[in-house]
Amino acid sequence: MAHQGVTPQSEDFSRWYTDVVQKTDLADYSPVRGCMIIKPYGYELWEAIKGALDRRFKATGHQNAYFPLFIPESFIKREAEHVEGFAPELAVVTIGGGKELEEPLIVRPTSETIIGWAFQKWIQSHRDLPLLLNQWANVVRWELRTRLFLRTMEFLWQEGHTAHATHEDALAETMRMLDVYTDFAVNEAAIPVIPGRKSDQERFKGAVSSFSIEAMMRDGKALQAGTSHDLGQNFAKAFDIRYTDENNELQYVWTTSWGVSTRMVGAVVMTHGDDKGLRLPPRLAPIQVVIVPIFRKEEQRAAVMETVGQIAEQLREAGVRVHVDERQNVQPGFKFNDWEMRGVPVRMEIGPKDVEKGQVVLARRDIPGKEGKRFVPQEGIVQAVRELLDAVQAGLLAQATAFRDSHLHEVTDSYAHFVDVIQGGEWALAWFCGGAECEAKVKEDAQAVSRCFPLEQPHAGEHGKCIICGEEAHEMAYFAKAY
Amino acid sequence: MAHQGVTPQSEDFSRWYTDVVQKTDLADYSPVRGCMIIKPYGYELWEAIKGALDRRFKATGHQNAYFPLFIPESFIKREAEHVEGFAPELAVVTIGGGKELEEPLIVRPTSETIIGWAFQKWIQSHRDLPLLLNQWANVVRWELRTRLFLRTMEFLWQEGHTAHATHEDALAETMRMLDVYTDFAVNEAAIPVIPGRKSDQERFKGAVSSFSIEAMMRDGKALQAGTSHDLGQNFAKAFDIRYTDENNELQYVWTTSWGVSTRMVGAVVMTHGDDKGLRLPPRLAPIQVVIVPIFRKEEQRAAVMETVGQIAEQLREAGVRVHVDERQNVQPGFKFNDWEMRGVPVRMEIGPKDVEKGQVVLARRDIPGKEGKRFVPQEGIVQAVRELLDAVQAGLLAQATAFRDSHLHEVTDSYAHFVDVIQGGEWALAWFCGGAECEAKVKEDAQAVSRCFPLEQPHAGEHGKCIICGEEAHEMAYFAKAY
Repeated sequence: MAHQGVTPQSEDFSRWYTDVVQKTDLADYSPVRGCMIIKPYGYELWEAIKGALDRRFKATGHQNAYFPLFIPESFIKREAEHVEGFAPELAVVTIGGGKELEEPLIVRPTSETIIGWAFQKWIQSHRDLPLLLNQWANVVRWELRTRLFLRTMEFLWQEGHTAHATHEDALAETMRMLDVYTDFAVNEAAIPVIPGRKSDQERFKGAVSSFSIEAMMRDGKALQAGTSHDLGQNFAKAFDIRYTDENNELQYVWTTSWGVSTRMVGAVVMTHGDDKGLRLPPRLAPIQVVIVPIFRKEEQRAAVMETVGQIAEQLREAGVRVHVDERQNVQPGFKFNDWEMRGVPVRMEIGPKDVEKGQVVLARRDIPGKEGKRFVPQEGIVQAVRELLDAVQAGLLAQATAFRDSHLHEVTDSYAHFVDVIQGGEWALAWFCGGAECEAKVKEDAQAVSRCFPLEQPHAGEHGKCIICGEEAHEMAYFAKAY
Repeated sequence: MAHQGVTPQSEDFSRWYTDVVQKTDLADYSPVRGCMIIKPYGYELWEAIKGALDRRFKATGHQNAYFPLFIPESFIKREAEHVEGFAPELAVVTIGGGKELEEPLIVRPTSETIIGWAFQKWIQSHRDLPLLLNQWANVVRWELRTRLFLRTMEFLWQEGHTAHATHEDALAETMRMLDVYTDFAVNEAAIPVIPGRKSDQERFKGAVSSFSIEAMMRDGKALQAGTSHDLGQNFAKAFDIRYTDENNELQYVWTTSWGVSTRMVGAVVMTHGDDKGLRLPPRLAPIQVVIVPIFRKEEQRAAVMETVGQIAEQLREAGVRVHVDERQNVQPGFKFNDWEMRGVPVRMEIGPKDVEKGQVVLARRDIPGKEGKRFVPQEGIVQAVRELLDAVQAGLLAQATAFRDSHLHEVTDSYAHFVDVIQGGEWALAWFCGGAECEAKVKEDAQAVSRCFPLEQPHAGEHGKCIICGEEAHEMAYFAKAY
């Protein structure tokens, strides 16, 4: 629990990230290379993310289910592009119950195939459609260059899988879930993500088209924080998922899939964190308010603790997540630093004078120093705390939005400028033909690929010249280095 | 969704179970032998179980965390008895990312070993104790003779893992969690479980002593519905988990572990179900009240549906889980059967006459036919429904308790009688010395082992002669055939 300094972001962003994640007890390394341990504070944050997403999934008519961890090897091979995409990343069980298996089992990297099998069994008629399922599960993709939360061999996620009667319905679902993710990111995680369509090169292997929400981290890099895929009839054909339509004719269904993972925890850390550590958006913070009692003499203790207890109780009853830091072996100053590092949105200090005057001190995490601190009467404290939590939530979103906007650059003049912008750690928005060769060239020249064609096109209806090849292009795309 | 008959329990209990689980859409078989698919209705039931347990874990000071799915093979081997117990049941990953692994990875059958590794890293001082963690996860134990929910290769569960400074503290934790399980089973699942200590033969491999809650299914068989283990210092020594005590001396910690799995869903089905299908305890039921609108003529429709909508809204606002069955292609009688099969605790019927008279019909699932049906005024309906849900909850518990008590037999006269009772599908309570030879003899003679030494001993302080060997015995144990 001892508080130690965190490497400044400006010095080494990557070390800053690892320091913060470990020192705030979000996660730890494990003895299995590539796998992490999610510690209680990190898991509580994930539970808050889960809860906020799950409510949205249910409100849009989805139901949770659970499918097997193991997938027969033959299933993965049924969709040609899918196997090509995932083959290098698979973990394979070859021994079970002491015996070599006849058919190896794949530890699921994603569940389109096994859910496709179930859909084939469950869907008969147009009355069975749409079928709207979601699964909360762990998945495994072989990966040895680990970064806690961002890239791990095993991760936790949700994967939505739906089947529809028409392509129109499936596409509407794909966009609806992209909206749900955007709404979650902006309004819960205070991350001003940019929703858009992936280029053909960057889409999910097996999808007709992929959409994502792209977030900007405080080092300027992009992080794909959620994806939603229109799978067309690719999996329907691979798994023979058909229904009889209203004219009694057999038709293939249209499917979608969409997912958000524990990577979102990393996105929250790197969107809001500063040199003092985490800054957690109040709606997701495991602890929203920490109360630090302050007294020098033992005789002040009882009065202070009584007020602390009363206020904590009031806040708890109002549904605020409060923690009282009663540690006696450390000083208040240490506690302030400690909770700042852990990103608690609001700190409340209560000392003997505050008790006398019927007030408390409130300090907000999003505004440092004296500017973020003020005295507030104990009367009406619940309302004051609620308003302050809302203000911190809005403050973090505003800061992240301002940061993002100051690092987005529309580039139309030259390819050299375009490459410069990307190599300078910024995002370039440019006309892009979408071609594989163009994207490969950017990868070579600027170590970056396209992030997305944003849904909100700044020059919608117009067209321009691809910044790379000069051919006609109808959409602009963001390019940036990425996690 | 078509309702078809369920095999009567008296005809073939095992087929009754499989029929009910599949026809009510709790679960389905999967293409991977031994693994099941949990369908939305079954998963909602599991979510209710999770929620009720998780609240209790948090109220008793536990935090959730998440540990890796994969465990290095060498870890499993560190605790001698543990590896002996689990070796035959392991699924082993030998290939990752296209390459043969140097050290195979075990898909976790349980997590004492990898959590032991983490405890060793995290625990230094007596101030770090107790450490009270819980994990919600999937685990794999190789098993090919599948029964949906009861015995599957992969299952979902929670596993609590705690570390303490003294054996006294660890034992207190073991008993506290057994109490939590008992409280959950009785007050949420309406299952009158018997908490007790397992015999030395039946304890968890690696534990000093194991405790369980034992439930009686409607075929008389026992089902172990939850376990809590005092692990002594076995894992502390295997993983070198030590702390410096207040005298600055290094001491091994004392650990516990405890778990409840998706098996609990099977326990709910087999404790309460009848020939018509499921009977779900209201506190866990995904749907607590189903409203069936009734009208013959189209002109009655609007008035009925208006009342239905108003009442459904009132109930929803009050936090009751309501479903309105608006299907138009099936008759009310079909709907009644269908929802009875799905075990919904309360059915509400609303027809044109009920609208006129300002009443509804309420039918409770735990009392069949006319006896369980009555007219209730629409005014005050929320209160009436709440009381009826409480009554059904109590009714199911009372019925299960009466059933259980009528199948428990204290046997003190002869071993032959004892074997007869067990073979007759009942539970025998008898003096038992706890010896391995005695237990093996019962297994051979009656295809059963001891379930537990119940915590509540009917003749506490006394002693008797072991019903098997005749030696002095200080405790009585239950013996029964089991799942």
